[in-house]
Amino acid sequence: MFLTVMTVAEGLAALAPERRSAVVSAVPALGVVPAEDVAAGEALPAFARATVDGYAVRAADTYAASETLPAFLEITGAVAMGSPPGGAVGSGAAMTVPTGGLLPAGADAVVMVEHTTEPMPGSVELLRAVAPGDGVLQPGEEVLPGDVLVPAGRPLRAADLGLLAAAGVVAVAAHVRPRVGILSTGDEVVPGATAALAPGQVRDACAPALAGLVVEGGGEPVPRGIVPDDAAALELALAAAIAEDDVVVISAGSSVGARDLTASVAARLGEVVCHGLAVRPGKPTLLADCGGVPLVGLPGNPRSALVVFRLVGIPLVRRVAGITAAPPAASVRARLARDVPSAAGRLDVVQVTLSAGIVTPLFGSSALLGPMVRADGWFRVPEADTGLGEGTEVEVLLY
Amino acid sequence: MFLTVMTVAEGLAALAPERRSAVVSAVPALGVVPAEDVAAGEALPAFARATVDGYAVRAADTYAASETLPAFLEITGAVAMGSPPGGAVGSGAAMTVPTGGLLPAGADAVVMVEHTTEPMPGSVELLRAVAPGDGVLQPGEEVLPGDVLVPAGRPLRAADLGLLAAAGVVAVAAHVRPRVGILSTGDEVVPGATAALAPGQVRDACAPALAGLVVEGGGEPVPRGIVPDDAAALELALAAAIAEDDVVVISAGSSVGARDLTASVAARLGEVVCHGLAVRPGKPTLLADCGGVPLVGLPGNPRSALVVFRLVGIPLVRRVAGITAAPPAASVRARLARDVPSAAGRLDVVQVTLSAGIVTPLFGSSALLGPMVRADGWFRVPEADTGLGEGTEVEVLLY
Repeated sequence: MFLTVMTVAEGLAALAPERRSAVVSAVPALGVVPAEDVAAGEALPAFARATVDGYAVRAADTYAASETLPAFLEITGAVAMGSPPGGAVGSGAAMTVPTGGLLPAGADAVVMVEHTTEPMPGSVELLRAVAPGDGVLQPGEEVLPGDVLVPAGRPLRAADLGLLAAAGVVAVAAHVRPRVGILSTGDEVVPGATAALAPGQVRDACAPALAGLVVEGGGEPVPRGIVPDDAAALELALAAAIAEDDVVVISAGSSVGARDLTASVAARLGEVVCHGLAVRPGKPTLLADCGGVPLVGLPGNPRSALVVFRLVGIPLVRRVAGITAAPPAASVRARLARDVPSAAGRLDVVQVTLSAGIVTPLFGSSALLGPMVRADGWFRVPEADTGLGEGTEVEVLLY
Repeated sequence: MFLTVMTVAEGLAALAPERRSAVVSAVPALGVVPAEDVAAGEALPAFARATVDGYAVRAADTYAASETLPAFLEITGAVAMGSPPGGAVGSGAAMTVPTGGLLPAGADAVVMVEHTTEPMPGSVELLRAVAPGDGVLQPGEEVLPGDVLVPAGRPLRAADLGLLAAAGVVAVAAHVRPRVGILSTGDEVVPGATAALAPGQVRDACAPALAGLVVEGGGEPVPRGIVPDDAAALELALAAAIAEDDVVVISAGSSVGARDLTASVAARLGEVVCHGLAVRPGKPTLLADCGGVPLVGLPGNPRSALVVFRLVGIPLVRRVAGITAAPPAASVRARLARDVPSAAGRLDVVQVTLSAGIVTPLFGSSALLGPMVRADGWFRVPEADTGLGEGTEVEVLLY
């Protein structure tokens, strides 16, 4: 039944799709994935700017200035925001300049207003000396032409959007979100909108939950409905998904019959990489490569399906999305409230609650979603471990 | 100039808006914020289900069964997925049942197929005893009618979507994403799409970056353009934003003149809570309460603006969004590569890179966005500290 069982790492390595989603010109927005480094076309700032409110001066005119022996300069003008200064600063002169204002020609420093007094209109007393460049942001100090503004493969963050806007970048070459086809199988499975269940029926919990994980991973979920346990119908639906989507995921049923059906159809449409993963919950996972499109056949139990998709599906979606620097996951290190058994050679994924640095495992049949809904996060018992004792520190990944 | 300076905590406490965004009926989706606990209308599962592939039996018929002395039962039928069983299980009888199949009447347990043999068609040998309930998920074991499926105030996660779908919940009462009006001011500020800058002009970096943070916080950015440094124009634009949006943020310029202008207009439209925050960068922050709408006047330097909006704006957006259990932030504890100076009474926010557990601060003028774009994350030097020494362990919040 499980002809080939792999670890998660082996399955991901065997499946690693070379294909990337298409590159288009996109308006910068949160989460957009640049397909290449975005370079600056011009220097930022374009001109020397004051970084304080004060007086634009020649630093040489201030060298002897102190509280006891201030330097006196004549105010020859005022810099207004957004306009070129109406004049230059000569020796013995100063111009008022607001924070962000363009440094006038002749000046090489700005004295903060807090270090000055205006004893009479038209002249200023400087109480401190400044060096050339003090109070000034130099042209190109942010970026020079050709500098990388934002790197390829890292989904755009808020600050990136600011820097791109400052540089006048209105479009970037970006990967489109990969299409992830989501199928459910099972004669017992009916749509979530079914008001009253007939005996033996269950509503499709996997498809909407997987759609949520696809969005989390940076993909675009493509709902492909519920397919009955019938080889011809399944092959038709899977072939359509493989033809149109970048990744295909199918919740393949938990019974032996349902799994066998999926495996035989997958073998006709591509190459089966493994029939099982050394993961609990989630062993009945089929991975196949269908002409470059990864097919993930998940267990029918929703909780098992979500555990496996987080371990295997999200990395695949990110790879196809061109994401090489994924956003970091929230996690915390904390100690186990009790022993957690496991078996060597198998990765265990345990749902937990967290309170005051103590990790309490939530057990229960993997047919139940409740423990995952109530969990604050989850941790792994690695393949090499045969269990973890009470008090062991584990890394909890937070939902 | 800074008539009232508050800590971030004081500012948030003084501003705490009681208003919440409107509640509507929403289709469950990732990040939707339930306005009230969502209760189950029916038991899940609705019927007893097999959790393994095997034989539905009366447990009492199996008590003596063992490898050496198997129990023999007559196979009287087969349960198909999604249909009511065609019969009941009597004493001495068994029905085949797939994982997820409805448990037939009369049966109280399922023997795994792995613990059986079929010596001849029509009968099964059981090699192990089972107790009542073995291999069975009981009705209501997931949820009972009235149980809370998902709590109010926690943005919906993938597993939540699965449980809601399983329970047939197609709509929940949810807060709409709060509208966050974003204004920029400054005679020098021009739209990001401006191809060539005139001397003294800068493109608007704040508005797109703030829009990104608003999305991160769960709000809907409402771009309200660039307003010149003119009291009447600013009052008109701010009044419109306050009338239509749930939170208003304005990057208020860094010069004294620009800040004074914002403060005087804010005082006419509402009550100014503070003129400054004890934060670096970000001191020139104005907070005001405009008839229940929080107004955040940010420094004109984009990096200062983003630091303050993350500290103050995102918590306000979440509060108005009805988010009481915010998604956890990704963070890591690591040690400082060098001393970081600070001043008592002031919160310092330091951008950093992280490598092999070592935290390297990125310095540079707060007028530069680059350090934030290049940073892996940031940490705080709390108000009480006068600086942190090399080797101190700090908590880095990751971007």
